[in-house]
Amino acid sequence: MTANRVVEYARSNRDRYLSELKEFLTIPTVSTLAEHRSDIQRGAEWLSRQFTKAGLQHVEVFPTAGHPIVYGDFLEAAGRRTVLIYGHLDVQPEDPLDEWTSPPFEPTLRGEHLFARGVSDMKANGVAVLKALEASIKNGGLPVNVKVIFEGEEEIGSTNLGPFLEKNKDKLKCDLVLSVDAVIAKRDLPSLAYGVRGILYLEVWVQGPVHDLHSGEFGGAIHNPAQVLCELIAGTHDANGHVTLPGFYDQVRVLPAEERAELAHIPYSEEEFREAAGVEQTFGEKGYSTSERLGARPTLEVNGLLSGFTGKGTKTVLPSKAMAKISMRLVPYQNPAVIEQGFREYMQRNAPPTVKWEVKHLASADAALVDRGSFGMRSASAALRTTFGVDPVFRLEGGSLPLVNLVKAKLGVEAIMMGFALPDDNFHAPNERFYLPNYYRGIETYIHFFDLTSRP
Amino acid sequence: MTANRVVEYARSNRDRYLSELKEFLTIPTVSTLAEHRSDIQRGAEWLSRQFTKAGLQHVEVFPTAGHPIVYGDFLEAAGRRTVLIYGHLDVQPEDPLDEWTSPPFEPTLRGEHLFARGVSDMKANGVAVLKALEASIKNGGLPVNVKVIFEGEEEIGSTNLGPFLEKNKDKLKCDLVLSVDAVIAKRDLPSLAYGVRGILYLEVWVQGPVHDLHSGEFGGAIHNPAQVLCELIAGTHDANGHVTLPGFYDQVRVLPAEERAELAHIPYSEEEFREAAGVEQTFGEKGYSTSERLGARPTLEVNGLLSGFTGKGTKTVLPSKAMAKISMRLVPYQNPAVIEQGFREYMQRNAPPTVKWEVKHLASADAALVDRGSFGMRSASAALRTTFGVDPVFRLEGGSLPLVNLVKAKLGVEAIMMGFALPDDNFHAPNERFYLPNYYRGIETYIHFFDLTSRP
Repeated sequence: MTANRVVEYARSNRDRYLSELKEFLTIPTVSTLAEHRSDIQRGAEWLSRQFTKAGLQHVEVFPTAGHPIVYGDFLEAAGRRTVLIYGHLDVQPEDPLDEWTSPPFEPTLRGEHLFARGVSDMKANGVAVLKALEASIKNGGLPVNVKVIFEGEEEIGSTNLGPFLEKNKDKLKCDLVLSVDAVIAKRDLPSLAYGVRGILYLEVWVQGPVHDLHSGEFGGAIHNPAQVLCELIAGTHDANGHVTLPGFYDQVRVLPAEERAELAHIPYSEEEFREAAGVEQTFGEKGYSTSERLGARPTLEVNGLLSGFTGKGTKTVLPSKAMAKISMRLVPYQNPAVIEQGFREYMQRNAPPTVKWEVKHLASADAALVDRGSFGMRSASAALRTTFGVDPVFRLEGGSLPLVNLVKAKLGVEAIMMGFALPDDNFHAPNERFYLPNYYRGIETYIHFFDLTSRP
Repeated sequence: MTANRVVEYARSNRDRYLSELKEFLTIPTVSTLAEHRSDIQRGAEWLSRQFTKAGLQHVEVFPTAGHPIVYGDFLEAAGRRTVLIYGHLDVQPEDPLDEWTSPPFEPTLRGEHLFARGVSDMKANGVAVLKALEASIKNGGLPVNVKVIFEGEEEIGSTNLGPFLEKNKDKLKCDLVLSVDAVIAKRDLPSLAYGVRGILYLEVWVQGPVHDLHSGEFGGAIHNPAQVLCELIAGTHDANGHVTLPGFYDQVRVLPAEERAELAHIPYSEEEFREAAGVEQTFGEKGYSTSERLGARPTLEVNGLLSGFTGKGTKTVLPSKAMAKISMRLVPYQNPAVIEQGFREYMQRNAPPTVKWEVKHLASADAALVDRGSFGMRSASAALRTTFGVDPVFRLEGGSLPLVNLVKAKLGVEAIMMGFALPDDNFHAPNERFYLPNYYRGIETYIHFFDLTSRP
């Protein structure tokens, strides 16, 4: 077989490939909400049928302590490398629903973009790699061995992926991992991430009175927990955007001067970034560029706040409790457990004796770096060049992928992150979208990647 | 007639008086929520039937631009004084529902307390005064003229009460107002408030990006509006609990030394206050006692906070918006409009240019002082002494009663605030309750008050 014939086949099947992607997008596979548990199961079963359709063998939906993992393989390329393909089938919750232009689980094409929850994170990439496998297998076989896993818990910390990899270490033996949960820099400029940020996600509760009080009868003589929580959050950053938690920067990897210079060369428009973000000004840690702030520096973000009365109108309540969801994006070589300890120390030092507080650990993952000179990175780079006509740039990814460290720890291999979403695709936000031409380019890039990886 | 015969009648009707109060408490007259609009109407109609039952005449439910006002009168005491009785039929929302021991709209007797939303604020006082009228009218007539109004919007700022008073100035002509929306100091220690705090209720919005963003892809390079809101709220107080808004204390009435000394004499247990509030320590403006902090000093309280993802689990969102409900309790002679201007100035000075913000005015009312030597205050004082066997103490009320200023402005008279709730009755909070023996004492006190007010 030649990659050309496979690419030809893929091109002639674009309509079907699009409608299959749309079908996947109608399943609300929201992993964080209990009410969608059966949708996740439905999504896993839909995927397993697609695995079979692609020509994969030994297809199975493995239960875990949480959401299931879908597995399939094609192991007929004797003597050739084995690629473990990783994806996830789960998506973020769709709220706030009223900000969506079209319903989140009714995929809608507007211009060159397909809109739906999960399309860029990461159902389009997921279906694209399955279609690349299908095209290859149906046109003379696949030149490499592949094992494919799609988990259902990426958006909630991949809790059960580690135990699954551990338990199936032999079954999942491979030469490298291809994660399709990734972005490229711009529509026509491919990129490869050589680092991902880690994460530590906490929930902080401050309690004042044991129940809500009348703000007239008690206000002024009781410490308001919402006020206290705001003061504690305010104190997590100084005026220069630095995080003030004790020891927060102690282990942070210092970028070598050459690396900073190279990152500074990535074609990047501050204006486009502002437009994607929908802000008039950027803001961040003093002394660092936007690219560095996003990939090379750790952050602390408030993801949610809740206290007292939040409905329409007025209620003169002095709230009993106040809650914040707070997550920190970590960089090599920060250790989430050490950072969490620092957060607790910060609370210990700064929370006043007039309130009680609690910090709950919700999720964490280490940051990771990938060797840019490895065989997999070179194959991915060449595949992207073939499809896009230009060399990819190397960048640091701001998001977190527990997978990269997991596969290194459990399987002893490196993960290549190659996917085709764009930074302004509204992941985790209303009106999530995917630039459709890159769905087809993605399929072709994966075809070339399998071909290149098959070479000695 | 003699007050004694009336009191005897009231005592022999206690069971019925309790079951009528319970009936009122089953109607969820929550004024701030649109879904309860018909319940307010039902509550108003229930009250109008009670007015008639009490012997009041010209009973009518007056529509307003918002919730209705119930009116009735008894004008057969020719040549005697006319008292305008004020109450409200609306109550606060019941949330958080899961903290109630018994359902909020199923009145439940436990020990000597009756539990239900609105029982202390202020349905028990409201029914008590109607029962005092009924007992008087049925036993030889009432020795004074009365006009009674119950509004449905006290908990949402009494927006339509002013226009109603203005429009019905002649109809409502009176010598003094008796507001039954009040508390006493302790179970066996009556008190009269000679001042009420005003209020300014605002809603503050901070907007960062135009929609929610992925905290990995954008975190670190965009100003997080929840972080900004927390910093702005943190800055509203200094370390000593003083409010930092420009000009906030400029117009505050300075307590004369004798008044501070007298307030300090009100029997008061810091321990009981802490227990009522459910806290281990009190907290407030440095240099002032708890009583002063509650009645004589202005406050700024966060009533609610909302931003981003607040459900179970994790969502790595960088929120687009963050909202706070903030109310200030004002004292004489602070002007709500001036204080609001100060708040806006504070935002102008301190909100960073990386976000947009908006301040919405939700409600406001002036603080007020009442002349302690007036005829009404002396009658109320004597009535309380008759029922409780001890002299009442004079105190400053921490809550807000727009009514006091309204009747002074529109009708040119003073309002006496006499009601029988207790400071630890959980107004506006779960498990709101009323100490039942004082429901019956309240009825008798009102009977004596009408009798005393009838004297020249």
